[in-house]
Amino acid sequence: MGKVAVMGYGVVGSGVVEILHDNKDTITKTLNEEIDVKYILDIRDFSNDPYADLVTNDFNKILNDDEIDVVAEAMGGLNPAYNFTKQLLLSGKSVVTSNKELVATHGAELLKIAQEKNVNYMFEASVGGGIPIIRPLMNCIAGNVVTEIDGIVNGTTNYILSQMFKNGKSFDDALKDAQEKGYAEKDPTADVEGYDACRKIAILASLSSGQTVDYNQIKTIGISKITSDDVKYAEKINSVIKLIATFKIENNKLYSSVQPAIVGNDCPIAVIDDVYNGIMVKGNMVQDLMFYGRGAGKLPTASAVVADIIDCFKLSGTNNGCIFEPLEADFMRPYEENKEAFMVILSGNVAEIKTKTENLFVNPEYISIKDNEIAVITNELTVSELESKLSDLPVVKKIKILR
Amino acid sequence: MGKVAVMGYGVVGSGVVEILHDNKDTITKTLNEEIDVKYILDIRDFSNDPYADLVTNDFNKILNDDEIDVVAEAMGGLNPAYNFTKQLLLSGKSVVTSNKELVATHGAELLKIAQEKNVNYMFEASVGGGIPIIRPLMNCIAGNVVTEIDGIVNGTTNYILSQMFKNGKSFDDALKDAQEKGYAEKDPTADVEGYDACRKIAILASLSSGQTVDYNQIKTIGISKITSDDVKYAEKINSVIKLIATFKIENNKLYSSVQPAIVGNDCPIAVIDDVYNGIMVKGNMVQDLMFYGRGAGKLPTASAVVADIIDCFKLSGTNNGCIFEPLEADFMRPYEENKEAFMVILSGNVAEIKTKTENLFVNPEYISIKDNEIAVITNELTVSELESKLSDLPVVKKIKILR
Repeated sequence: MGKVAVMGYGVVGSGVVEILHDNKDTITKTLNEEIDVKYILDIRDFSNDPYADLVTNDFNKILNDDEIDVVAEAMGGLNPAYNFTKQLLLSGKSVVTSNKELVATHGAELLKIAQEKNVNYMFEASVGGGIPIIRPLMNCIAGNVVTEIDGIVNGTTNYILSQMFKNGKSFDDALKDAQEKGYAEKDPTADVEGYDACRKIAILASLSSGQTVDYNQIKTIGISKITSDDVKYAEKINSVIKLIATFKIENNKLYSSVQPAIVGNDCPIAVIDDVYNGIMVKGNMVQDLMFYGRGAGKLPTASAVVADIIDCFKLSGTNNGCIFEPLEADFMRPYEENKEAFMVILSGNVAEIKTKTENLFVNPEYISIKDNEIAVITNELTVSELESKLSDLPVVKKIKILR
Repeated sequence: MGKVAVMGYGVVGSGVVEILHDNKDTITKTLNEEIDVKYILDIRDFSNDPYADLVTNDFNKILNDDEIDVVAEAMGGLNPAYNFTKQLLLSGKSVVTSNKELVATHGAELLKIAQEKNVNYMFEASVGGGIPIIRPLMNCIAGNVVTEIDGIVNGTTNYILSQMFKNGKSFDDALKDAQEKGYAEKDPTADVEGYDACRKIAILASLSSGQTVDYNQIKTIGISKITSDDVKYAEKINSVIKLIATFKIENNKLYSSVQPAIVGNDCPIAVIDDVYNGIMVKGNMVQDLMFYGRGAGKLPTASAVVADIIDCFKLSGTNNGCIFEPLEADFMRPYEENKEAFMVILSGNVAEIKTKTENLFVNPEYISIKDNEIAVITNELTVSELESKLSDLPVVKKIKILR
């Protein structure tokens, strides 16, 4: 019988305990072994909880119990999760986590310890909630070189943008709605400004490239400046706006960003609405893949944690080989050097703007939704090229176009 | 160094050889070991091929070579693929395959032999081409009970239906177009009548339920009877028609079918066009997932075969536990007992039809595209109930509605 400990008895942690109980038969059949929760680590009071007798506030009980082979860390945040995880791995226990911040910040070190100790550190739940994405990248398309990922990896912002497009809400009203429904936090900064998505794409980029991509180096623009006018421009070209977390590897250089992007309605990612996530993956052999599902929520996220727990037991005694090497010098390039197409909104005399821009870009297209303003669709060019071309023009806003 | 043999040097087999060569660095890094192709089994002449020296027509060379641990079977058809696979597994070699017919027909027996011999029989490429679906069902959502799958698993029919919807083509013209583009065979029966999709859903149902689902028992209706009128009716309710391969497990009973279905445009599966495939999976914890990508083609399919080869080497000396047990009596129910909603097209006096049907169904809705014909949208009911209700009515056609 396998014994696990669950650290953090919040939304995800309680979901893990619930799934291990409710789907016990299926899990036992898969593993030929029962999995039981022996400890739940939390400092809060759960004396009325059905699992109250498992709850402890003493981490050392878990650390020093030789019966515990696998620990699920669902505490969130860097501390004490980092310290606990490190001690557990060093003591020869496998750890699985839903903690994107910890993986994005200390993943490389923790994976290295896991390898040295011949145990595993797994993090399927850290990106895309219940959507299988880490394991497909590691195993299912292992014969591929992953060249690009474009993903909607934050449900809060996707809900807000969906409301702006489907129900004509303003950003502020859509955010308020998201907060009322519990999809956005009281302080929504981490979601709305793209910081959450940034950590997730850093994890996917590290996994795909094998090098530790620092999320601080990823250009990150949130959705708080997206207006109802932007929605109208996008609709005019049969498109929506999505917060796209992306990286691309070209000529052995990596470019990564998180920013709102115009996505044509014929792209499978355009129809991913509300709190759902969708991640498009390009492999050099398999071409386009997309993984879609609930990117958050108690049971979907816990379901990914449980899959990792099962895998840790299956792999008992072996390490899965997942490692983030140090970032090679010059591998990660400034996002400004990446080529993109843009929609640039310009204000002023429309005829004058057209005259000034028609030779600036290759076959520019124009969109108009009101007087004294026009949007131009550019060809693909680097952000620095774009900025130098636009330096003398009355730019209102630039939005990337996903191609 | 790992040595593999590739049996069948057609589209998929040559793709496997190409990927193992072109992505050698990535694969070697993943596996900490090089994989080399030692034999290519084919009876045709490839004397001008760059790998001509590896080609043999002697199966026994592969069978009796102790250096060969893993064999990729990309021959297609039941014979001699079945016989060869069985001998290889019995001799202690792992086999990976893209052969859906063989897996659907003899999968249970071959998996059992693999388990007894402590090797593996893997078939990621048999469903959905390059799309990871077998491994996600086995591992990524292992903590779930899979309750339903609805999939577009045949690219040919999806291309034809996309042409009918997007370009207003008739079935015959769309089929001719698909044949010209190489998406449909000269004899398109296996695709168009749903037989290919039927074998694929049988594999997914067997894997998800753990019981051997016989594809002969799956109700299968193709798309050859779909007309331009059907397209118009679907468009009237903001929907498309897709060939949906499905199974559902309710109260421990399995219902499975392949048939055209009306799919609302807000369903992620509705935007999967052309030769792409998309598979929606419902798990009791993770809820809805969708996997999307190229369901066929040389490199995408070969990419799935290569992922299996890599996994066989990783798992060397252990069996992955995949087994199809015999079908329990009464587990698989006749499709007629499954509840579905339908669009029923009726011809004749519209007022009379409305009078006759308005109390037959719960809140029926009506769609009209021409005189003397009307379509009624029913509530959910079993096919047998539907048929008894319609027995005295002038039915032109019934099409399932995906809910």
